[in-house]
Amino acid sequence: MRITALRVTPIAIGDPPLRAASGLHAPFALRTIVEVDTDAGVTGLGETYGGEGPRRELEAAAPRLVGRDVWALTSLRSELERDGGRPEGWAWEGRGLGGAGLFAAIEVACLDAIGKATGKRVCDLLGGAVRERVPFAAYLFFKHAGDDAWGEVMTPEAVIAEARTMVDRFGFRSVKLKGGVIEPALEVDAILGLRDAFGPDVPLRLDPNAAWSDATAEEVARRLDGALQYLEDPVPGIDRMAAIAKVAPMPLATNMCVTAFAHLPEAIAKHAVAVVLSDHHMWGGLRATVELGRLCGVFGLGVSMHSNSHLGISLAAMVHVAAAVPELTYACDTHYPWQTDEVIAGGKLRIEDGSVAIPAGPGLGVALDRDALARLNEQYRKAGLVVRDDGAEMRKIDPTWTRHVGDW
Amino acid sequence: MRITALRVTPIAIGDPPLRAASGLHAPFALRTIVEVDTDAGVTGLGETYGGEGPRRELEAAAPRLVGRDVWALTSLRSELERDGGRPEGWAWEGRGLGGAGLFAAIEVACLDAIGKATGKRVCDLLGGAVRERVPFAAYLFFKHAGDDAWGEVMTPEAVIAEARTMVDRFGFRSVKLKGGVIEPALEVDAILGLRDAFGPDVPLRLDPNAAWSDATAEEVARRLDGALQYLEDPVPGIDRMAAIAKVAPMPLATNMCVTAFAHLPEAIAKHAVAVVLSDHHMWGGLRATVELGRLCGVFGLGVSMHSNSHLGISLAAMVHVAAAVPELTYACDTHYPWQTDEVIAGGKLRIEDGSVAIPAGPGLGVALDRDALARLNEQYRKAGLVVRDDGAEMRKIDPTWTRHVGDW
Repeated sequence: MRITALRVTPIAIGDPPLRAASGLHAPFALRTIVEVDTDAGVTGLGETYGGEGPRRELEAAAPRLVGRDVWALTSLRSELERDGGRPEGWAWEGRGLGGAGLFAAIEVACLDAIGKATGKRVCDLLGGAVRERVPFAAYLFFKHAGDDAWGEVMTPEAVIAEARTMVDRFGFRSVKLKGGVIEPALEVDAILGLRDAFGPDVPLRLDPNAAWSDATAEEVARRLDGALQYLEDPVPGIDRMAAIAKVAPMPLATNMCVTAFAHLPEAIAKHAVAVVLSDHHMWGGLRATVELGRLCGVFGLGVSMHSNSHLGISLAAMVHVAAAVPELTYACDTHYPWQTDEVIAGGKLRIEDGSVAIPAGPGLGVALDRDALARLNEQYRKAGLVVRDDGAEMRKIDPTWTRHVGDW
Repeated sequence: MRITALRVTPIAIGDPPLRAASGLHAPFALRTIVEVDTDAGVTGLGETYGGEGPRRELEAAAPRLVGRDVWALTSLRSELERDGGRPEGWAWEGRGLGGAGLFAAIEVACLDAIGKATGKRVCDLLGGAVRERVPFAAYLFFKHAGDDAWGEVMTPEAVIAEARTMVDRFGFRSVKLKGGVIEPALEVDAILGLRDAFGPDVPLRLDPNAAWSDATAEEVARRLDGALQYLEDPVPGIDRMAAIAKVAPMPLATNMCVTAFAHLPEAIAKHAVAVVLSDHHMWGGLRATVELGRLCGVFGLGVSMHSNSHLGISLAAMVHVAAAVPELTYACDTHYPWQTDEVIAGGKLRIEDGSVAIPAGPGLGVALDRDALARLNEQYRKAGLVVRDDGAEMRKIDPTWTRHVGDW
């Protein structure tokens, strides 16, 4: 089964004004839809980071894909990782996919095509499911009032109300708060409020995206002793994370100081983190995520999953791989409840009881809604956004705003 | 595609009187042939360590396989590794397969069945081949005179003659000597003689199976500076290997102090080894070997491949997985030239130019010769061997013989 074409469609999807240490989400999040056509008559789907950088990288890779065996993925990975540069991830900040991210987008589409051709689910191609439903966490954000039903959420009390709605609507059994936005002491209050509201059986996480100073991180860790399942990226860098890990009573997690295989040896040697957030989009695909799971298991690290604003093709891929990784025992992150646009036929995948069932049917188990794809592509062209820049968006509201990096 | 039966056939295959630190090979080596029948009408093949231990473990596992999805391998792995105990490998010394070895034997047969059902090669199921031929090393042994054409090989000069025949016949471009048999100084002479005979472009390895004292290991390492691609297991245990690694001018390799994923963190932290010899039979199968490759690559460890006396089903599996692991850049070990019996249809796979082509056709690309299987099973029953015991075999010749473990 040979690849006959790689088709790349940039899209813009509606996104609420969510806040993070990086600033403010723009009205549109950018994604790229990838289609791999084959001479067997099946087409595989993929979804990855958006904007002009990923579009250009994918389009540049297209000629070298044509004629290749869709099953021969490892040789393609070696080639793209060799030529694609930069294994550090961070595609969403406009630095492009890099070799690992480029391969990931193509691998997902190839595995979808293989699944469709063989009648097998993508999770089966990865060794089979160890769970038929994948738990996700409610992903709470501070946010501005916007063109949505959530209203402004800028206080601990509003966070708890947002959590209640999320949990009532989707049945989430774990809760994560994106922090690094308001005074650290108030974010602690929000977590303690969530603990009071949901009790000790709902694991809580706090992720300030490395905004804090060491002193703040230590103080927050001390105050939240017993209240957090894990504290994610309180400070930047492996060395500073390692120092906090020594004194924090809870495990530290990361999707910032360890975002590629190359970062693991130092992080492990320095005991910097206890939980690694996988992300197939930037770690090099679905098989790479299975391999990451094994590696983390060997070294006694936990595995969770990172998310960015995404649609159903990404969610399907996340569910298939999470189902196939035995070491992935933490509920995964997802922004999915925040998105109203969708590109898959039949509308959004359902989150019920806080989890998503592996989509039925061969491959990823999802199909493109071509009308929606055309509409979202048109939206991309009209939006005029070519790169995610939360800081620029924030400064439209507050021109004096600057990002905290390890100093709050 | 569901498993309908697991069939287990113990066999004994003719084996020359090869010597190693463990003693002397018996006239027969023991293997087990595994067949996984499916409701799709295809049967998958596997081969693993032999004797009554593996036979009993495999037969005990059979009932829990029937009715399972042949694609759902990771959940089976978790189950067998949980229940099978002992992840340390060493099945050939009569301690049984353990969970990882048990799963490996079954996984290979399941992947062969999947390949046959989908028309794909096993290497493609693992992500695709990064090489179409897999290089192997000439595996030189000291040996007694026996019922074979090789004669007695107990001197450096005889080793060089044996190497010349091996290289002439199979085109090997790397050469490994199994040491730990004669005086260490004479084994050094053998390596220096091989270097003189074949020149610096033929990588050489020496493997005394942890027989030596630290002083001997250091002296050998010093004398063989510049002559060895790697020195394998000069002394036992991670701590002693780490001490030798500090002073040895060449990389150290192992298939003794690191034989399971659980051994890697300590070995890596202590810088005990530079090259890990994979072995899908004991590391938990073909996907586990791919994962081992990734892990070794991440930590800057080289990957080679270990062997025991084996037939063509094992060789085919070794070739498929070695073809799919980009990090496996050292020529693999194989005892295959020493075996005259065969269980696959069409006779032995060909080693040409020192390498083996990925067998053509779906799955492993090999089929059972049922007459040969019946004959080798009959040979097993007549031989009366139920466990490999090189020491007992050695003491039939020299009742005072004892094994050197780290003290020669």
